[in-house]
Amino acid sequence: MWQLHQFPLCPFSRKVRLQLAEKAVAYDLVRENPWEGRDELWQINPAGRTPVLRDSARGSVLADSRAICEYFEETIERTPLIAGTALQRAETRRLVALFDENLYRDVTEPVMHEKLMKRLILRQPPDGQTLRRAGKLLHGHLDYIDWLVDTRQWLAGPTLSLADLACAAHLSVIDYLGAMDWSGHEQAKGWYMVMKSRPSFRPLLGEKMDGLPAAREYATLDL
Amino acid sequence: MWQLHQFPLCPFSRKVRLQLAEKAVAYDLVRENPWEGRDELWQINPAGRTPVLRDSARGSVLADSRAICEYFEETIERTPLIAGTALQRAETRRLVALFDENLYRDVTEPVMHEKLMKRLILRQPPDGQTLRRAGKLLHGHLDYIDWLVDTRQWLAGPTLSLADLACAAHLSVIDYLGAMDWSGHEQAKGWYMVMKSRPSFRPLLGEKMDGLPAAREYATLDL
Repeated sequence: MWQLHQFPLCPFSRKVRLQLAEKAVAYDLVRENPWEGRDELWQINPAGRTPVLRDSARGSVLADSRAICEYFEETIERTPLIAGTALQRAETRRLVALFDENLYRDVTEPVMHEKLMKRLILRQPPDGQTLRRAGKLLHGHLDYIDWLVDTRQWLAGPTLSLADLACAAHLSVIDYLGAMDWSGHEQAKGWYMVMKSRPSFRPLLGEKMDGLPAAREYATLDL
Repeated sequence: MWQLHQFPLCPFSRKVRLQLAEKAVAYDLVRENPWEGRDELWQINPAGRTPVLRDSARGSVLADSRAICEYFEETIERTPLIAGTALQRAETRRLVALFDENLYRDVTEPVMHEKLMKRLILRQPPDGQTLRRAGKLLHGHLDYIDWLVDTRQWLAGPTLSLADLACAAHLSVIDYLGAMDWSGHEQAKGWYMVMKSRPSFRPLLGEKMDGLPAAREYATLDL
């Protein structure tokens, strides 16, 4: 059985959890706190980051969320999430990178720093200017998601893909931390409601972070 | 014919160029300067980054260096660079991520900022403390590369892989900018010499950046 070393509000761990649920792969959760930098985590992943998947019985270790997702795409046929022609598969991977790199750097990471790290670890108030800047950049990303939803059935094309899971994973963290603002983004909001209502999403909606309750509408299925 | 929108010292563009050369895929170069933020670059890649590959005749666009590399792995059989079992392929992808994310953040990016951006654009002297910190972190990465070279034939396993190309791409940028220090890293140095002597590497060694000559030993094949 796989053990997923993860952190409840790590967007990359969430993407992997969504994929494993869509593909009906069983796993146990092992909690990591990124700020602790546990030796064991560094030993199994020299990048020192979540998520890491480990199968102790077989001695297998998978690290890096995109490498993990490609592994399960290759080994589990159920619910293909990087599908279609080579160009369509490239489009899915381009969007995963856009969300995991740009959306993360612009919004998820600063929001996590201001609203999670500062509250739980640094014991400092959040910086309003940083949060306002992240909120402005979030609108730019939501504009692009609106456009994708307007022109395609799912974000990367005609079928549900890893791009939908990656995007929803980031937005769910931003939403948990009370930094989501859907105003003017009906299409993105509609798409996110569909994602939220999938059975694969349910465990994430039940997730609780000690000392940091979720924003009011985080787990509701009807905004 | 593909057009590669790239920047001569962009490590991600270099990784793609190495892969295309190994696979004998023809392409033209289109020069981008990341600090200019050209509208055309943003139009073809909403992430606003190099590399982007475009085939105007067929209307195809590929963006994100990992998505580009996966595309050519899927479509060009020659010289497989993500090869072997699913676990071996995951190991190649894990290392590509380690170099493209950790080595980039720790070393390539700060070195590029201090020695390229400050010299050509910001017209400021480099910050010695930032460069010393990057140099220290470089030794940690070279230690890990030494260990990989000691235990495997190539970085990810028994055959040349995308992990070798990604790592060599970063080290070549660090080397061009005069921030390489091989002392105490004979294994990593030996492996890099082998990479440098591959025909796919030759165009990169001939590369010149206006106003920023390469470090003395950048293009020599015998350190």
